[in-house]
Amino acid sequence: MRNESKICVVLDDWEKASFTPPAVLEELGSISQNVTFAEGKQFPDGAGWLDWLKAEKPEILISGWMTPGLPENTLEEVPELKYVCHLVGSIKNTIPEKLIQDGLIVTNWGNSVSRTIAESALMLAIAGLRRVSYWTMEMHTRGGWKERTSVVTGSVFGRKVGLHGFGAISQELRKLLVPFEVPVMTYSPSVPDSILEEKNVQRANSLEELFSSNDVIVELAALTEKNRGIVTEELLRMIPEGGVFVNVGRGAVVDEEALARIAEEGKIQVALDVYGEEPLPLDSPFRKLDQVLTQPHLGGPTVDRRQDASWYGLANIRRYLNGEELQSQITAEVSKRIT
Amino acid sequence: MRNESKICVVLDDWEKASFTPPAVLEELGSISQNVTFAEGKQFPDGAGWLDWLKAEKPEILISGWMTPGLPENTLEEVPELKYVCHLVGSIKNTIPEKLIQDGLIVTNWGNSVSRTIAESALMLAIAGLRRVSYWTMEMHTRGGWKERTSVVTGSVFGRKVGLHGFGAISQELRKLLVPFEVPVMTYSPSVPDSILEEKNVQRANSLEELFSSNDVIVELAALTEKNRGIVTEELLRMIPEGGVFVNVGRGAVVDEEALARIAEEGKIQVALDVYGEEPLPLDSPFRKLDQVLTQPHLGGPTVDRRQDASWYGLANIRRYLNGEELQSQITAEVSKRIT
Repeated sequence: MRNESKICVVLDDWEKASFTPPAVLEELGSISQNVTFAEGKQFPDGAGWLDWLKAEKPEILISGWMTPGLPENTLEEVPELKYVCHLVGSIKNTIPEKLIQDGLIVTNWGNSVSRTIAESALMLAIAGLRRVSYWTMEMHTRGGWKERTSVVTGSVFGRKVGLHGFGAISQELRKLLVPFEVPVMTYSPSVPDSILEEKNVQRANSLEELFSSNDVIVELAALTEKNRGIVTEELLRMIPEGGVFVNVGRGAVVDEEALARIAEEGKIQVALDVYGEEPLPLDSPFRKLDQVLTQPHLGGPTVDRRQDASWYGLANIRRYLNGEELQSQITAEVSKRIT
Repeated sequence: MRNESKICVVLDDWEKASFTPPAVLEELGSISQNVTFAEGKQFPDGAGWLDWLKAEKPEILISGWMTPGLPENTLEEVPELKYVCHLVGSIKNTIPEKLIQDGLIVTNWGNSVSRTIAESALMLAIAGLRRVSYWTMEMHTRGGWKERTSVVTGSVFGRKVGLHGFGAISQELRKLLVPFEVPVMTYSPSVPDSILEEKNVQRANSLEELFSSNDVIVELAALTEKNRGIVTEELLRMIPEGGVFVNVGRGAVVDEEALARIAEEGKIQVALDVYGEEPLPLDSPFRKLDQVLTQPHLGGPTVDRRQDASWYGLANIRRYLNGEELQSQITAEVSKRIT
């Protein structure tokens, strides 16, 4: 049973290529017979954007990275607009907090992409312990080969894993670690004991306990004001020799200058997908240290799984149309907290 | 209850550092009160080796990569020697087939290191799909950063996985893939249906079926005369676009010249730990193609898990002393077959 509600999809071509493969478009067509498409780049610096919305009168807007930011007076000018189904994560550049306070319903990709970031964390932990960055550079730039008497490689098997933060990504990572049969610990004061018991995760009572008693540390804490720089040099130096520090969360949570020094010393391995400043500056020490596995914030979702966010969004649109509760709704309170 | 049996351990210092940590030495001491150590390098080109064995009269020899090869007349000269507990894989340079035919008992590390190679295969599949080698080179040598509109990354989630060969490593890899909830297929004519059913793996009836119907192909077939070059250009071209070819088995199973051409074309990703010629020649195209993740045969066991082979060997020594059946015993027939 198709709906009359007007849905506008505002994505650039390259976003459509990954977010809306044919099966997603078919599902969208089966939700509403009244769907219009536009590209964000039709509205350079937002020119003509509000006029277009006034003409189209969407009840639901499907937005992405390239969708122009909604003006603060959008709801006065386009009173038909009730719900922005944001297919990606951050709403910072797209939806002003005022619109949420004024009653605009907003959802984002929620947990639909968490598993790909968890996958990236697992890969970085294994690759870090095996020094994949160093060996890639050896093989490709220096004609190198291992020397069996001196090579140092490590495995996740037999290690202890510590997760800083226990949100959706950590919970997905915990699942991927099950076959490794390793003990998993987390520092996440807000998560209740019942969840930790259910997921078979031990609680660290302090960051000191987390960093000193685990060989594989995965950084996944949210960037709140409290968390900025909370992973200090002192904490990083507590990671046991032979361990690995992986960051797939936020770079600014970590003292990155200290991390670079510690990486250079070589007692632990370091594998990074995120940085305090992105793109990573050309003079960053992480670029100069072959042994630091550095990826340009590609943790997730991978391009082939962006469609997961679309399916998640379409399920939310069906819920909205049925008057049901939405998943990952961004309230004014949530909007203030997240980065 | 300690045994009187004489055990000789012949490992070089760097082997001892990883294979025999204190807990292993303690266990060895609790097995026999009569243990002697030597280093392979004490016997350059085997000089003095047989004399040393004649003087020590071991019943059990624990050997490693650096242990000198046993002369074909060892059993005549050292009739006390009954069992060589080889802590590593290949016996080719250590134990002549004739000694096995003459009744020498030989075991190797068997399946004790399979899980680390499986871990490496999983990492290479994820890292290959995410183009970790390319991005490592971009970040470290060219000051690069992703361009969101054009980046191409993939995930193991949502893919189909095909394993060429279904020995111990494939079976360990199958376990690691469980949380990814992906269908797994194998081409392995010798493995019975009952094992495939138990492990939830579908049988491919041909290599063509395996390569054409899976996105993630992991090469793990043994190098037999029949398998040499069996992975042809035609098969490699059947892997669906966006897929990845991982080799953690044997390089010579694959037409590597074709593989390099296909990697350069970029429709599939390639991640390699093994090569037909090792060390990989300096003029190998794999060294020149940034996008090919190349590691110098480091799949496993990782240095920190070499001790798993020792624990496995010590368990076999206890079985030998108790007159029980050994695990991974290398019979004359097995010795002919493996490479």
